[in-house]
Amino acid sequence: MITTANVPHSALVSKRRELSGLEVFRRMMAGDVPRAPMMSLLNLRLLEADAGRVVFSAVPATAHYNGMGIVHGGLAAALLDSALGCAVNTMAPQGQLFTTLEMKINFTRPLTREVGRIRCEGKVVHMGSRVATAEGRVVDEHGKLYAHGTATCIRFEPRRKRRAT
Amino acid sequence: MITTANVPHSALVSKRRELSGLEVFRRMMAGDVPRAPMMSLLNLRLLEADAGRVVFSAVPATAHYNGMGIVHGGLAAALLDSALGCAVNTMAPQGQLFTTLEMKINFTRPLTREVGRIRCEGKVVHMGSRVATAEGRVVDEHGKLYAHGTATCIRFEPRRKRRAT
Amino acid sequence: MITTANVPHSALVSKRRELSGLEVFRRMMAGDVPRAPMMSLLNLRLLEADAGRVVFSAVPATAHYNGMGIVHGGLAAALLDSALGCAVNTMAPQGQLFTTLEMKINFTRPLTREVGRIRCEGKVVHMGSRVATAEGRVVDEHGKLYAHGTATCIRFEPRRKRRAT
Amino acid sequence: MITTANVPHSALVSKRRELSGLEVFRRMMAGDVPRAPMMSLLNLRLLEADAGRVVFSAVPATAHYNGMGIVHGGLAAALLDSALGCAVNTMAPQGQLFTTLEMKINFTRPLTREVGRIRCEGKVVHMGSRVATAEGRVVDEHGKLYAHGTATCIRFEPRRKRRAT
Repeated sequence: MITTANVPHSALVSKRRELSGLEVFRRMMAGDVPRAPMMSLLNLRLLEADAGRVVFSAVPATAHYNGMGIVHGGLAAALLDSALGCAVNTMAPQGQLFTTLEMKINFTRPLTREVGRIRCEGKVVHMGSRVATAEGRVVDEHGKLYAHGTATCIRFEPRRKRRAT
Repeated sequence: MITTANVPHSALVSKRRELSGLEVFRRMMAGDVPRAPMMSLLNLRLLEADAGRVVFSAVPATAHYNGMGIVHGGLAAALLDSALGCAVNTMAPQGQLFTTLEMKINFTRPLTREVGRIRCEGKVVHMGSRVATAEGRVVDEHGKLYAHGTATCIRFEPRRKRRAT
Repeated sequence: MITTANVPHSALVSKRRELSGLEVFRRMMAGDVPRAPMMSLLNLRLLEADAGRVVFSAVPATAHYNGMGIVHGGLAAALLDSALGCAVNTMAPQGQLFTTLEMKINFTRPLTREVGRIRCEGKVVHMGSRVATAEGRVVDEHGKLYAHGTATCIRFEPRRKRRAT
Repeated sequence: MITTANVPHSALVSKRRELSGLEVFRRMMAGDVPRAPMMSLLNLRLLEADAGRVVFSAVPATAHYNGMGIVHGGLAAALLDSALGCAVNTMAPQGQLFTTLEMKINFTRPLTREVGRIRCEGKVVHMGSRVATAEGRVVDEHGKLYAHGTATCIRFEPRRKRRAT
């Protein structure tokens, strides 16, 4: 069940006004910026962040299952959405944000509890002045591929509403 | 946090050996088949199911937020993945399952708690003997569009492992 | 073989500075604006244009075949790219252009010469201030579906180079 | 204009009954198998083929222009469709074919005549028993990126009609 406790989710938002994307992600890994609520709910973790590249992890669990006895596609989708969007934002200077316009995901193998910890590396493919694209792969500890995807992001224009593209 | 309690998630899997997709979805709405764990975790609900069409709902909450102060793209992605996959499975006879090969999602507006209940209608576009496609839209109670997407599904061949496509 | 004759392809470009997208498409159908070179090369035609909707046609021919004895996927892709981009541009006022960021296409049936004339209707799904999305379907004269797709377009900003997104 | 001359397009089809995908592509590069009609029409060339990887080239010309004074998206789409589908088929043994279910393409920069020769490398990402995925990039001679994409292919089952998925 979803807790409605008021998590201080906007801490990161305000930090982004003062810091670059990469600096915020580094503080997040150091524990100085709290994990976003959805990250806690699905148990996703940011493991690495460099210019143009991030790695997130997840541990497929019973709680992620769909009605067909395997992990719901939403887990890999959430993991990829985080990794692709954050990879692009590692390139964003202070005060500039990119938001995701669209994502495409291929599910290549079923995820189950038996798979163990999975990693998703997101990497920037194209970085333009207004639009950026990224790609990512979801693999287990042996490098076996479970999903892969790409996303298109657009620079957030502060005078407009968020993602009101 | 993710509960590791052993939810009877495979109830639906075994039901699908005896029943068509549509019959299972109808029992699910009647409460005779338990909600899948991921549905509970994200608070997604199946509202309607007909041949070639289903409707799911969700209520964006603080627990779904990303670090940017809006709902994480994983919520709309999970909602669409459910709606598109189930729309295709309403057409599957007893013992036959379709699994999702890929999904593409466009995020057209940011989701926040203020949006209230959202609905996602999934509809079959193409139904072939081995492959099916579906499309869906995420809208609020006024019909405003927040996301839309398409998916490609493939018939599950029981002699193979699930989704080991 | 490709002719390198200098087709007056920029006629439309200059027209768009004075006219809305819809007005240009109407003049194109009336024969007042020449068909773009790629339209001639692949033999694509604009048949209908309204606010938020266009229809293009093509006639699968031997010249469109790939090495596998069916029509190359590039024909349906070109048809959809035209239909989706133009559907969005029917909504663009004088001097404003939208360019395509990405397109996704599903091939649901093989195209052959025997299929005869095909139509592709493109329709706007979301129209924002900076970003628009559209969907389209490729069907034969009996309404049989051969391909469908979606695209994301972004408003061209004249101070930047074309599509240098 | 499209020539309706009857090109011996099915030469490749019959060759594929006796040869693996990679062997056919090698004969094609050696000139022993004729170029497919659509390859001639758009002036696409197969340059390299190895297990899991191919390279095609094209030369953007006036004949490829759309009405907006740049190259029509259909050229990059056709190039990617060829490269992704053929990359997968380099892994297909004698008598087995893969056909493309869907393709997703990002247009990152406008193509013009001034760009000169472009290359598209396609590479297999996932190779399963029934389904395969591939990715590819369209670059100029300096490695500048103009488009990138992914595709999902399915094994052709000879007892069914082509692509009647």
